[in-house]
Amino acid sequence: MDKILRVDMSALSTRIETVPAAWAGLGGRGLTSTIVAAEVPPTCHPLGANNKLVFAPGLLTGTPAANSGRLSAGAKSPLTGTIKESNAGGTAAQMLARLGIKALIIEGLPEADKWYSLHVSKDGVTIQEETELVGKGNFAVIEAVEARLGKKTGVLTIGPAGELKMTAANISVKDPDSKIRSHGRGGLGAVMGSKKIKFISIDDQGAPGVKIADPEKFKTAARTFAKALLDHPVSGEGLPTYGTNVLVNILNEAGGLPTRNFSTGQFAGAEKICGETMHDTIVARGGKPKHGCHAGCIIQCSQVYPDKEGKYKTSGFEYETIWGFGADCCIDDLDDIAEADNVMDDLGIDSIETAVMFAVAMEAGVLPFGDGKGVIRLLREEIGKGTPLGRILGNGAGSVGNAYGITRVPVVKNQGIPAYDPRSVKGIGITYATSTMGADHTAGYTIATNILNVGGYVDPLKKEGQVELSRNLQIATAAVDSTGMCIFIAFPALDIPECLPALIDMINARFGIALTGEDVTNLGKYVLKTERQFNIGAGFTNKHDRLPEFFYTEPVAPHNAVWDFTDEEIDEYWNF
Amino acid sequence: MDKILRVDMSALSTRIETVPAAWAGLGGRGLTSTIVAAEVPPTCHPLGANNKLVFAPGLLTGTPAANSGRLSAGAKSPLTGTIKESNAGGTAAQMLARLGIKALIIEGLPEADKWYSLHVSKDGVTIQEETELVGKGNFAVIEAVEARLGKKTGVLTIGPAGELKMTAANISVKDPDSKIRSHGRGGLGAVMGSKKIKFISIDDQGAPGVKIADPEKFKTAARTFAKALLDHPVSGEGLPTYGTNVLVNILNEAGGLPTRNFSTGQFAGAEKICGETMHDTIVARGGKPKHGCHAGCIIQCSQVYPDKEGKYKTSGFEYETIWGFGADCCIDDLDDIAEADNVMDDLGIDSIETAVMFAVAMEAGVLPFGDGKGVIRLLREEIGKGTPLGRILGNGAGSVGNAYGITRVPVVKNQGIPAYDPRSVKGIGITYATSTMGADHTAGYTIATNILNVGGYVDPLKKEGQVELSRNLQIATAAVDSTGMCIFIAFPALDIPECLPALIDMINARFGIALTGEDVTNLGKYVLKTERQFNIGAGFTNKHDRLPEFFYTEPVAPHNAVWDFTDEEIDEYWNF
Repeated sequence: MDKILRVDMSALSTRIETVPAAWAGLGGRGLTSTIVAAEVPPTCHPLGANNKLVFAPGLLTGTPAANSGRLSAGAKSPLTGTIKESNAGGTAAQMLARLGIKALIIEGLPEADKWYSLHVSKDGVTIQEETELVGKGNFAVIEAVEARLGKKTGVLTIGPAGELKMTAANISVKDPDSKIRSHGRGGLGAVMGSKKIKFISIDDQGAPGVKIADPEKFKTAARTFAKALLDHPVSGEGLPTYGTNVLVNILNEAGGLPTRNFSTGQFAGAEKICGETMHDTIVARGGKPKHGCHAGCIIQCSQVYPDKEGKYKTSGFEYETIWGFGADCCIDDLDDIAEADNVMDDLGIDSIETAVMFAVAMEAGVLPFGDGKGVIRLLREEIGKGTPLGRILGNGAGSVGNAYGITRVPVVKNQGIPAYDPRSVKGIGITYATSTMGADHTAGYTIATNILNVGGYVDPLKKEGQVELSRNLQIATAAVDSTGMCIFIAFPALDIPECLPALIDMINARFGIALTGEDVTNLGKYVLKTERQFNIGAGFTNKHDRLPEFFYTEPVAPHNAVWDFTDEEIDEYWNF
Repeated sequence: MDKILRVDMSALSTRIETVPAAWAGLGGRGLTSTIVAAEVPPTCHPLGANNKLVFAPGLLTGTPAANSGRLSAGAKSPLTGTIKESNAGGTAAQMLARLGIKALIIEGLPEADKWYSLHVSKDGVTIQEETELVGKGNFAVIEAVEARLGKKTGVLTIGPAGELKMTAANISVKDPDSKIRSHGRGGLGAVMGSKKIKFISIDDQGAPGVKIADPEKFKTAARTFAKALLDHPVSGEGLPTYGTNVLVNILNEAGGLPTRNFSTGQFAGAEKICGETMHDTIVARGGKPKHGCHAGCIIQCSQVYPDKEGKYKTSGFEYETIWGFGADCCIDDLDDIAEADNVMDDLGIDSIETAVMFAVAMEAGVLPFGDGKGVIRLLREEIGKGTPLGRILGNGAGSVGNAYGITRVPVVKNQGIPAYDPRSVKGIGITYATSTMGADHTAGYTIATNILNVGGYVDPLKKEGQVELSRNLQIATAAVDSTGMCIFIAFPALDIPECLPALIDMINARFGIALTGEDVTNLGKYVLKTERQFNIGAGFTNKHDRLPEFFYTEPVAPHNAVWDFTDEEIDEYWNF
């Protein structure tokens, strides 16, 4: 029997609950958002006793379905004030799923000024006081927890950024190599920090495992699904070879690579940081160009990036990070960016928010554009130590804008705008504006259709069709985020006719149900509307579904494009 | 003929405009809010080119009417994101009125990284580049401008806080003694700083003066009005003798004196900082216990507070400042608070926001509660120099709460809650929640009726009648703020039947019109609704008309009171 684990940090008590009937068909984002919307008062302080932190594996997590091992974390975001779901790979999702844990809900705040850890096992969840690892970085936490509890132990942890309740703080997840994947964006690490939980360890020994109602049907569907992933040129070839960083050259050519704090759309140093260069560097240094963030991933878009001596430098080294420190901060040294990525993994801080933030800090004169060594120093000495400057920086781009009175701050709902200029790739601008979680490319990745010719083509420079494109992708993404699937399954799902039916077949075979494609679309709509309702309760209106003023007034090279959607056009998005 | 002066800082051009018919009957807050609502896009960045800074003397300013010399400043607030009007005494209002300047509108942002000053005279307004006074404190600016242009020159200036675009920055006004009065709250100094205007000098030589349509009627009404001010025990006796600081003992006895960052309602050190002690200290040291913020003030609630050697230390030393650094920060040394007040005058930073902020910073551990010398040091060394810590502090209580992850942050719409605990004085809580400008006691000063038995009595600890009380006072205040009158005329206006008709008679005699009491009420309603409409356009909803969570859950001594209004009860406020 699946169960809910509930931890009350005010009472320092835990309990095991049965799964309410209304939650039985939900998983991942669908479940975290449902629980947060049902149990968290929308106007509460995100770092106060009334916020709740919810973890939920997806509907297919723990099954042999390819790429299904992602974990959703949800809460009210301290960065945006909206509802937030963030999903990540790593080993925790599949362990929780195998333990039959539908969701782990953490509520309340401890009275004492002490730190704690949680331990999840087949017997439920327990709370221990923690002293040794307080103040330590994520790598040290994983090492220590493995030493205490065994190499196979799952770990969810916060670094110094989370302890300091910085609103760019991640919740970090141990990956199959004992390195780090991240629940990034939205500052969920600060919520975990506010609840004084340094880490959560997971032991899945004796786990009942995931039962599949119709194993034969599942096997057939899983095979079709995996084939689609491998057959598609993006998920089967581009991403495995060059990682997500394949996008540097593509976006640079498209003129949509935000450069120098979004002041132009192409970066002179692109060649030095692009996926092709990275691939060759990794191979030359004896690293791993392919790597999966969780067991069962067959796309393998990740990689292990070594330093010049061939030693581990970083992994999970993504396009958005490399774009942000590269083009947006004008740092053209991939080793510096890799070093920064490693430090951010250890501090547990969101690399997108932090990159966007540094570009604003450079505009404010805190350090010069292009100063890679300066970035690393500020990460270690200021953010890592929680100095006043570190607190300004660790709270993201909006915080730096406020502190220094800067008006060119690329954020929506106070969250940094990622790696695609919305003036030159207009569909993604609709996603940034309307996402329930602030600027987020993953919420409805129109780059697929605007740039990569996946799922058809919508001209990135014209307004026509963008609202519909973003709407359809956001609905589909909300559903996919509920399955535990990696977002990159969207590429074959958009182009290969057998892919999506196979995904639905796997869900049906897993639960012995008979969902249709329409049911899945309705799930996506339900998730978005549930999230939107929470946000309305928190005081958000369509006036918050807007890009910053400077996108309307500053044309961006090379297309001289501005953001030219009217309010009415943007608001059309919610017509579903 | 009255005129509008318009300054375009983008083009570095100025022009003189005729007064549109729709603005002719407006002055002060009514006019600044009308202009801001008409000309500023509500979603614009407050520090960007689209915000406008508007100054307007009141309808009666420049006439011999007692206490009519206040100037309104308006813009979109960088602190709250709402519309903002802030009025202050000093010499500028009457000079502008005598020059026939209905409003001075400053728009745009200069392209060059240079500072400027404006000079207003009978010939209009001119723009000069300014280098010498950049970075200087307000006292030095006033001294230098007087040296350049003559002792009688009016001055509106920003200190380092405004130059640094801190959201707690004031616009400071030269008073009759060449000291400082402040357009406080809401950070209008940052708006002036964003427009790169260090100061505005005013020369009223050759001014046509204010014409009065019916001088005899005016004189009679003015006499009745002045008599009412002098006859009322609060405006005629309490305020002149002890200043606004008479309230320390009154609020302490009422259990509504927020202490130690709003954690209790009475301060053990009240006796050391109260108005009675301050009065005796001033007298013993040879200071001035009575002082007017502008010529024609007959209440004289201000004072000049000397140091132990009898030398000028500060003036305009108000209850809210003394409460904030005293009870809320637990500093029981009046000389330390006076020193802080003087430094804040020089930096040009809001003493209420800054006091509320320091109490939050003390809760965050930045410095200990009660550390008066520490406060003075942080003002000078951090805020004054714009260090990273100074920028966190200079952006007010909400900023400190965000930087340090503190949840007990007494703000509404990000503006610090002033000197009256809304749990124990419930009427003022309705004002804090619903004011169009964030927490602001002056927006509808229910203390009059809740505590001082002025205008009747509404029990401060009960919910009954508070919404209506706050609504009526906010409507009346919006009208009074349009006349150029000091808010303290409300005391006689509420109790002495002849007072309000005399005020209306003065307006009628000045303009040769025939307003009724209902017209004045309608003016107040119009002002509030205009402001509310702007805020709705900026994305504010009734969800923002709420006090912080901890007022609902933490009972405050000595009454063990919590904030217990339902959302529906609060929202009743806007039913007019």
